[in-house]
Amino acid sequence: MARFMDVHSGMNGIDQQGLEAAHLADAQIEGDENVHFLHAWADPATGKVFCLSEAPDKDAVLRIHEKAGHPTSEIYEIALEVE
Amino acid sequence: MARFMDVHSGMNGIDQQGLEAAHLADAQIEGDENVHFLHAWADPATGKVFCLSEAPDKDAVLRIHEKAGHPTSEIYEIALEVE
Repeated sequence: MARFMDVHSGMNGIDQQGLEAAHLADAQIEGDENVHFLHAWADPATGKVFCLSEAPDKDAVLRIHEKAGHPTSEIYEIALEVE
Repeated sequence: MARFMDVHSGMNGIDQQGLEAAHLADAQIEGDENVHFLHAWADPATGKVFCLSEAPDKDAVLRIHEKAGHPTSEIYEIALEVE
């Protein structure tokens, strides 16, 4: 399993309820592709949402987001991290 | 204190040692601006690096990155998150 950061644009005005609903929609089907979403961060002012996940590959993450109703094509494989 | 996600581009080929060195350079001066970097994620293949921080405002984060030698202008205020 690898880690990925994907980026959604255009989600301006999303609120906490909307973010939780989107995350739940992903979570309910993520097992279909062996994806697990770990965290999501949103900036309603610019419409950017960042999602961190574990998955077999990029396409698996993108398919779950698409099926859940919030498709994106911007995704990065996280090979390195520090805290 | 608010939370921010900033994005660096063009760091292609960065390795674990380089990411840790960049993070350390930030950490050594972050107190000057009351910034605290929480986590960084890197994709050496595309050169993208994402940094999560707590700070008084966006400009404080950007000043620390600039002083540490890895400036960026792309930053988002994280008003919402889920895990």
